[in-house]
Amino acid sequence: MNQKKEWEPYEHKVQYYETDQMGIVHHSNYIRWFEEARTDYMEKMGMGYDQMEARGILSPVLSVEADYLQMVRFGETVTVETFIKEYNGIRLTVGYEVIDQKHQRTCCRGTTKHCFLDREGKFLSLKQACLECHQMFVQGLEDHQDTENHRDMEDRKE
Amino acid sequence: MNQKKEWEPYEHKVQYYETDQMGIVHHSNYIRWFEEARTDYMEKMGMGYDQMEARGILSPVLSVEADYLQMVRFGETVTVETFIKEYNGIRLTVGYEVIDQKHQRTCCRGTTKHCFLDREGKFLSLKQACLECHQMFVQGLEDHQDTENHRDMEDRKE
Amino acid sequence: MNQKKEWEPYEHKVQYYETDQMGIVHHSNYIRWFEEARTDYMEKMGMGYDQMEARGILSPVLSVEADYLQMVRFGETVTVETFIKEYNGIRLTVGYEVIDQKHQRTCCRGTTKHCFLDREGKFLSLKQACLECHQMFVQGLEDHQDTENHRDMEDRKE
Amino acid sequence: MNQKKEWEPYEHKVQYYETDQMGIVHHSNYIRWFEEARTDYMEKMGMGYDQMEARGILSPVLSVEADYLQMVRFGETVTVETFIKEYNGIRLTVGYEVIDQKHQRTCCRGTTKHCFLDREGKFLSLKQACLECHQMFVQGLEDHQDTENHRDMEDRKE
Repeated sequence: MNQKKEWEPYEHKVQYYETDQMGIVHHSNYIRWFEEARTDYMEKMGMGYDQMEARGILSPVLSVEADYLQMVRFGETVTVETFIKEYNGIRLTVGYEVIDQKHQRTCCRGTTKHCFLDREGKFLSLKQACLECHQMFVQGLEDHQDTENHRDMEDRKE
Repeated sequence: MNQKKEWEPYEHKVQYYETDQMGIVHHSNYIRWFEEARTDYMEKMGMGYDQMEARGILSPVLSVEADYLQMVRFGETVTVETFIKEYNGIRLTVGYEVIDQKHQRTCCRGTTKHCFLDREGKFLSLKQACLECHQMFVQGLEDHQDTENHRDMEDRKE
Repeated sequence: MNQKKEWEPYEHKVQYYETDQMGIVHHSNYIRWFEEARTDYMEKMGMGYDQMEARGILSPVLSVEADYLQMVRFGETVTVETFIKEYNGIRLTVGYEVIDQKHQRTCCRGTTKHCFLDREGKFLSLKQACLECHQMFVQGLEDHQDTENHRDMEDRKE
Repeated sequence: MNQKKEWEPYEHKVQYYETDQMGIVHHSNYIRWFEEARTDYMEKMGMGYDQMEARGILSPVLSVEADYLQMVRFGETVTVETFIKEYNGIRLTVGYEVIDQKHQRTCCRGTTKHCFLDREGKFLSLKQACLECHQMFVQGLEDHQDTENHRDMEDRKE
């Protein structure tokens, strides 16, 4: 098993154009923050989404889920933690946790599911199409499982 | 039981700025289409969201889910069907079906969940805060259940 | 000289997600409305932008200008009038007037400038690349000049 | 005359959702980048736009202009330089220069014009409404004029 990579999670400063007349961030923007964080994650893991596309691999979103727990406002900065929840070489599930930096509260939790396609729209096995990409998500999945196991153990101690 | 209202579902013409470099509509836009369709639905039901806000009632999104089934492209027009899936006076679940007009295929299915707040952010019982709004969603729920029952009966006949 | 085509100008219903915390439509959205109106105009003139792209012609925006005269709010519907201000086969200037339907006031005036490129990014003479496209903009320019002349004559009468 | 403040200009990483099917950043997004850069500038100058709004001062956009010089693509990062071009206590003109970090080319130049309003929509003299805000823009204007003068002198030497 490889060493888990450690890095700073993605930061997003709330923009004025992201607010709506309720005075809070419009809910559709979190879906875009997930994408920002996912892109940042891949880049930090060593294979940016732009590089993956340059190799002819597209990764469309099959589904998205978001639970909004706390409102976020202009002037605040959020951290978006990203983790690989499921990956089998064909399908990928990415999880997100949006944390308001000021109050250190989880504002939003979400997931996106993805597949991998070539430019003609045919399904790809990522392992065959790009071993480096494949290993990145395998590593990401392991990292996440380690974190989860570690949490379980901490919980049992209590 | 009231008569089910019949109307044209919401139509949205895909805009160029909604596409991304994959050549398809970016997934975050469907979340906005859900809002467009929900707003249109309320207006056709007799109580626009602008009127509801004018009465001091906010209806933030608690969660959103979307399943992307078919890609949608610039030049196409979609129909978004909207239906009240759950409503208990405190919480509301709205369902959406995005249908590509050309191929008559369901491109996306989704739901949004909502609560009702006053301007200070306190939870409201919609029945008490605005009877007219309450009745609209009760009616919408009945309409949806009728449609579901009707579908069940059709299925049994076959 | 051909007969000026008459049609309904483009209508846009203001969406909740287009508002910001000032309680008005965020100014960046008008730039998108210009595009919506330009696309609609081309379609009504007989050559949708999707069809033009299908012929291998791209029409990027070289510059944009917008003057905001009145605030627009959620619940309102605007009309966007579109007219061909300049066209020489190589460059195109499109003008827009956003009119609030309720008060019949001009809320925003703007222009966008465009060139024409092939898929490799080389400049095109539209006359050579697509005669039908060329004639559409020539016709649009004539229509606009007629309207301007007509206005001038009306002004002199007074 | 105060010392010109030196700081890092605003950086924006191009997001996938900002691209369109032409494979480049959609032109409407630069208008949002201007806002991001303006907000960042104010914050670095010591008075964030959120703080200004908290004092009851709104600063709507009266006009916007953008000239697109080079296409920007996903995977690139741009720097947005911001400078106070005109300021008289009542009106403000802000200039922007978007520079592609990789090629160090100016991709877009733009300006936005602003006034200052109270919550009821009445025009404000910023000097009276918020001396601190006023001084920030006076300082910004001086900084910009110094830079311009410096450039002129450099040009004459050549």
